[in-house]
Amino acid sequence: MDAKQTLEQFRNKLEPLLDEYFDQVVPQAKNISPVAHSAVTYLKEYTLRKAKRLRAALMYYTYLMLRGKNSEEALRVSAFIEIIQSYLLIHDDVMDQDALRRGGATIHTIYADVHRQQYGMQDPVHFGESMAINLGDIACHLACDILTDSDFDAPLKVKALSKLHKQIVTVGYGQMLDVVGSVRKSVSEEDVFLVHEFKTATYTYETPISVGAILAGATDDDVKVLTDYAIPAGIAFQIQDDILGMFGDEEKLGKANTSDLREGKHTLLIIKALENGTPKQVKTITQALGNHNITQKDADKVRQIIRDTGSLEYSQEQTRKFVAQAKAALETRLEWQGEGREFLDGVADYMINREY
Amino acid sequence: MDAKQTLEQFRNKLEPLLDEYFDQVVPQAKNISPVAHSAVTYLKEYTLRKAKRLRAALMYYTYLMLRGKNSEEALRVSAFIEIIQSYLLIHDDVMDQDALRRGGATIHTIYADVHRQQYGMQDPVHFGESMAINLGDIACHLACDILTDSDFDAPLKVKALSKLHKQIVTVGYGQMLDVVGSVRKSVSEEDVFLVHEFKTATYTYETPISVGAILAGATDDDVKVLTDYAIPAGIAFQIQDDILGMFGDEEKLGKANTSDLREGKHTLLIIKALENGTPKQVKTITQALGNHNITQKDADKVRQIIRDTGSLEYSQEQTRKFVAQAKAALETRLEWQGEGREFLDGVADYMINREY
Repeated sequence: MDAKQTLEQFRNKLEPLLDEYFDQVVPQAKNISPVAHSAVTYLKEYTLRKAKRLRAALMYYTYLMLRGKNSEEALRVSAFIEIIQSYLLIHDDVMDQDALRRGGATIHTIYADVHRQQYGMQDPVHFGESMAINLGDIACHLACDILTDSDFDAPLKVKALSKLHKQIVTVGYGQMLDVVGSVRKSVSEEDVFLVHEFKTATYTYETPISVGAILAGATDDDVKVLTDYAIPAGIAFQIQDDILGMFGDEEKLGKANTSDLREGKHTLLIIKALENGTPKQVKTITQALGNHNITQKDADKVRQIIRDTGSLEYSQEQTRKFVAQAKAALETRLEWQGEGREFLDGVADYMINREY
Repeated sequence: MDAKQTLEQFRNKLEPLLDEYFDQVVPQAKNISPVAHSAVTYLKEYTLRKAKRLRAALMYYTYLMLRGKNSEEALRVSAFIEIIQSYLLIHDDVMDQDALRRGGATIHTIYADVHRQQYGMQDPVHFGESMAINLGDIACHLACDILTDSDFDAPLKVKALSKLHKQIVTVGYGQMLDVVGSVRKSVSEEDVFLVHEFKTATYTYETPISVGAILAGATDDDVKVLTDYAIPAGIAFQIQDDILGMFGDEEKLGKANTSDLREGKHTLLIIKALENGTPKQVKTITQALGNHNITQKDADKVRQIIRDTGSLEYSQEQTRKFVAQAKAALETRLEWQGEGREFLDGVADYMINREY
């Protein structure tokens, strides 16, 4: 079975568990207040929107590959990382001022609308952002609590939580670089890779993989080898994400394919195009970056420049290079076999060939 | 020794440990990037500003009262709750749009200024808020990691973390009610108590007290009795906080004594004054609530109405009633003695007589 099919099957197993989880949390919130009730209901809907479930799958299949004993619990607990994902995305949406996520309205946008319909005082946009900051925080602690309360041995949970917190700190540093990058006039290729490493590679790959490994009883050395897989696989994933963010189909993506430009993100695509472009091409890109009123026609001009300067090809080459590096790390461990190993090898390739 | 002196002595022991903690974290961030380095430096300065250290003290003295074995580690780890406090305050400052906290600029204000001085693109206010959301998140995970990595037994840590996460979820629900309260035209006394219970009583009192108790090996029954102390003591603390927020000395408070009015907060003071006021008095209050350009003269009119309607006296009575209830809970446990017990009894009184 290829990684795409495995991921689909995994999604069909995970999502009912996510649903069940929220069916416990929603009534608790309802007991507290109608405001808490609707907040958790929004969180449920947001978390259950169509998504790859890559992070949960990486955690689960790493657990299997490391021969963990309680795969049923690992599956259930892998939901936690999808709720961590909601937490970070909700905050990210506020920072990026995005209106759309996974084909639906972002949390701050939902609350701004609630304000317009129900409340009279103060600013709806600020209200929306405040509620989203809050709901993100709530999601963080709900997620951590799933792992904390799980059936694994306490020392393993402590080790996994310690890894989690350290890595999300790193993710935060990466996110800061990203935010700063979008207000700076120029950003280096090195900085872009730092953001990719600290933000995506750590949190999309390294965090779920190391949590899954630790819960299965992995040694520090095992975790190190897995990190050598996770970081390049994650960087490749992010470069592909940036390619899709520029060239992808909006319907498949569930978000605008102009928002990276609008936000002024210095992706690898942009940096290489600026490096190799003619003064006229550079000017076109510079004007598009951070333009809040960008049209598809403006974006198309930038897309053409990215193709013409060889920047698209360069990024694609990089994804292949990093995936090869990731898979080479796993090859040092012949004892890691079976369904888990197949998935980790396959998903690295699949993620750079995906369309959303 | 009275609780005020004990708290001062505790502060003098805790703050060097907080300082030491950041002296480890700052170089790690420096290795990552200048942006991470300055972020953690801001967090250090923000956390080390003059503060009561009430939460850390409650955790530590509860640990002592429950006869925990490693009081040195309990002291060191109690720093974690002060960093949780920074995390929640940084986010709170964004939601409340406050410029001042603990006598210094709030994090989002600091970053808005950084933007104005260093960066050219996009909106400085939004940049400031984005960085503050991010730094709050980082503080959350740094704090959780202190507890996770501490020397206590893994099962105790897991139990403490589980309590922590559940309680911060409750805090989040309380914060949401608070945010909604400030955009609603009317709020009931019941809702105000809900906010006080979920937001302050839970997080300022119940969280540090139950974490301290659990780390000392408390039974579930012990924790229950301590909760019966924590919730009323916390509600009394919050009512006094609201009184200071209206009548306190700005210099002592380290923040504006008009910001609750400006934010349109329906404190108990406001609710009782609206309930008992003449139509003219009610109108004066309603105009002041949520007025972003409020002057001290406008605020003085509201203060006089709060006195004249008996609302100030009512709030003060309530603080005394709740403190008596809190202390009665501790009286059911004669075996809880010594320095810890003295502090918990004394601090309940001190907190409703404090000036900042």
